[in-house]
Amino acid sequence: PSTRALAAEIGVSRLPVVLAFELLVAEGFCEGRTGSGTFVAAAIRPRARPGHPAAGERGAVSKGRRSVSRSTTRLIRPPAPWLLQPGAFRLGDAAFDHFPLTTWKGLAAQQTRRLTAPDLRYADSMGHLPLREAIAGYLGAMRGVRCEASQIVVTSGSQQALWIAARCLLDPGAAAWIEEPGYWGVRDVLRSVGAEIVPVPVDEEGLQVDRGIARSPSARAAFVTPSHQFPLGATLSATRRLQLLEWARRRGSWIVEDDYDSEYRHDGQPVAALHSLDQEERVVYIGTFSKVLFGALRLGYLVLPPDLVPAFVAVRRSIDLTPATFPQAVLAAFVREGHFARHLRRMRALYRERRDALVEALHAEIGPEARVRGESAGMHLVLELPRGTNDRQFAVLAADHGLSTMPLSFCRTGPGGTPGLILGYGGTEADSLRSAARHLAELLKSG
Amino acid sequence: PSTRALAAEIGVSRLPVVLAFELLVAEGFCEGRTGSGTFVAAAIRPRARPGHPAAGERGAVSKGRRSVSRSTTRLIRPPAPWLLQPGAFRLGDAAFDHFPLTTWKGLAAQQTRRLTAPDLRYADSMGHLPLREAIAGYLGAMRGVRCEASQIVVTSGSQQALWIAARCLLDPGAAAWIEEPGYWGVRDVLRSVGAEIVPVPVDEEGLQVDRGIARSPSARAAFVTPSHQFPLGATLSATRRLQLLEWARRRGSWIVEDDYDSEYRHDGQPVAALHSLDQEERVVYIGTFSKVLFGALRLGYLVLPPDLVPAFVAVRRSIDLTPATFPQAVLAAFVREGHFARHLRRMRALYRERRDALVEALHAEIGPEARVRGESAGMHLVLELPRGTNDRQFAVLAADHGLSTMPLSFCRTGPGGTPGLILGYGGTEADSLRSAARHLAELLKSG
Repeated sequence: PSTRALAAEIGVSRLPVVLAFELLVAEGFCEGRTGSGTFVAAAIRPRARPGHPAAGERGAVSKGRRSVSRSTTRLIRPPAPWLLQPGAFRLGDAAFDHFPLTTWKGLAAQQTRRLTAPDLRYADSMGHLPLREAIAGYLGAMRGVRCEASQIVVTSGSQQALWIAARCLLDPGAAAWIEEPGYWGVRDVLRSVGAEIVPVPVDEEGLQVDRGIARSPSARAAFVTPSHQFPLGATLSATRRLQLLEWARRRGSWIVEDDYDSEYRHDGQPVAALHSLDQEERVVYIGTFSKVLFGALRLGYLVLPPDLVPAFVAVRRSIDLTPATFPQAVLAAFVREGHFARHLRRMRALYRERRDALVEALHAEIGPEARVRGESAGMHLVLELPRGTNDRQFAVLAADHGLSTMPLSFCRTGPGGTPGLILGYGGTEADSLRSAARHLAELLKSG
Repeated sequence: PSTRALAAEIGVSRLPVVLAFELLVAEGFCEGRTGSGTFVAAAIRPRARPGHPAAGERGAVSKGRRSVSRSTTRLIRPPAPWLLQPGAFRLGDAAFDHFPLTTWKGLAAQQTRRLTAPDLRYADSMGHLPLREAIAGYLGAMRGVRCEASQIVVTSGSQQALWIAARCLLDPGAAAWIEEPGYWGVRDVLRSVGAEIVPVPVDEEGLQVDRGIARSPSARAAFVTPSHQFPLGATLSATRRLQLLEWARRRGSWIVEDDYDSEYRHDGQPVAALHSLDQEERVVYIGTFSKVLFGALRLGYLVLPPDLVPAFVAVRRSIDLTPATFPQAVLAAFVREGHFARHLRRMRALYRERRDALVEALHAEIGPEARVRGESAGMHLVLELPRGTNDRQFAVLAADHGLSTMPLSFCRTGPGGTPGLILGYGGTEADSLRSAARHLAELLKSG
């Protein structure tokens, strides 16, 4: 139809119709022929429009034809009820109400005022230099990790750091040791890069290096949490540390040290990072601010052997170019001006108090048979359950009662092993921990 | 030695020595025996300390034993001189000095003031809901992309969106079409996930779908830039759009539409996204704020067919859990309050002016034989060079003269094809573009 006729037919002025026709011509769906009007483009007419399937036909598209990659299928799992809503014991919650929010907001406001046009550019793929310098200073003073800013790559939390390390160090099919039980995020990462997962059991001294060597002597990497084994809480013993480093040296393998929460050690002296013993530059060290500051910040880092820096930067660029500048600038100021160290000191005291309250309450409510593990550091502990208990079933029940306990079996690759519950105490006040422990004991007795 | 003797020997008080001994015991390097003192732990003594290699031995560690994964090796490349320092024509630079920084700072300050403790928690893996809602509103109104917030996953720029899509849709070895020439970041992503790269040539109508079908009919995915082909600038024609959708429907393949800068169309009507024609939910749509706002923001997004959401969320969680909340909250306010649409309008006018200045100057300086392509949209155009010119060599020379031109061959997977230079004009003022064009013409004549 002519633009005039169509405008009259649908009751609008002629201008929008003219514009619509121009658009159809611009996109190639129509072509204008001078003097005769606008027509459906010749190139399109003969071809049937795709889509518009009958309702039945659409439903008939086979599922297989909408498939995603196999590595992805392995990653999909239903949401875990114990992580869904906030509740006592939820892992990953910190004492957010004790965070120095006013100080943080002041620094954020200051960094906001200082923003200028050049700050808007794509930034350094390794991360904001002032933050990397602040991290290097902190690690040297507090964790025995000696490094330069030029060895540090800022990441979006420790999860991205683990992923980059896995992608960088492992070819598909390459074997990697993980701790059993261990952090499920490492399993996800290894599945994502197609590595072969070799679970190595842990005991009171941490990873059983002998068993790792027996199962997969030539694994390309070992992913470990030496300072505070997740979730059982052991500190990797000196003997095992040296044994692990020696294995890596002899085999040309890599050690990925995830030092996720060792800032909070409640009993005994702080333990230096495995990295500090590594004289062969075989250790990739990972730290994070998500646990000790707050999860929504999403900032962690890798400390790399200098010769691995170009490879890690290449992987980082391939997945997301660079981290956003602004949050890094605020965090750098927070560390540099001493607020971070001060916050750690305050939180260490607070978490120790919460830990004491929880351990005491568990023993009081459950009785002397309550077996608590891994309470000497961090923001969580493990309560072992009687053999034969289905800890997943129990955790689902507990979630219904507002208790966000994580089943220990969730951290295992296979069946077997002592059942238990991982109880976070970072985000729950001492009084609430006591009543939650009472509630938990009741559920355990009635279950 | 006893703590007292050692303290005297090194001339410090006894307390630090006692603490040091306790630490050595805590870490398992020493053991205390009541009444007789502190000794090196039995478990450690017999084993030779690793490390401490003689200088020669250390250098002798073979390179192969410090190897990274093959997929990583393929990603490492020397830094490109044309991206190293700021200079006229640099790709990815926007008109940062025209960004409404005061407005942005005001919103950032407002969001900072509103921060409360619950905002510190780990956030939604799909992204901040208010931002996803703002994106859905914007896409429906401006890009013809109809979607709900529940189909949107916020990413760290379009690079992460491309990576997640590739990992989610492609198994190692699966074939994927890419545009030739095309965006190098897609090649990096496909190498990273181990996919088979199938370069499909582009012409004035964009991707030559016929050639793609001839080369790899059962490719699992096609990565395309239909609105403004990178780098040559074609708009994918209507015929090709329908042909591509029909291929995907018939083969059960996926189309990843990277709509990186189509907000800026200078000539003719804006072109709707390919996504708007997709009735089979075969298109994964990617947008980004890095080009239209600023690179340091690092925020992009995926628009997904609803049935693919769980798979994409699983991959996103495996690589970095969630995006940081704060920058998303500022951006959501910026979009919601109309600043984004206003900024786009102002920038469209500005970039058109810069584009006009550059095209005019290139013709004036080089002469009528200057062949300019892809100038009808975006923030860059392509200047073709005479056949036989080595565009990389020329770009290195130009970089020495402060001109950051990118060689067209950098966007190709193999040799051949017309040589050319990609000239960004987003971050360079009209006057500077004119003098840079003169400089470029001189170099071309003398080269």
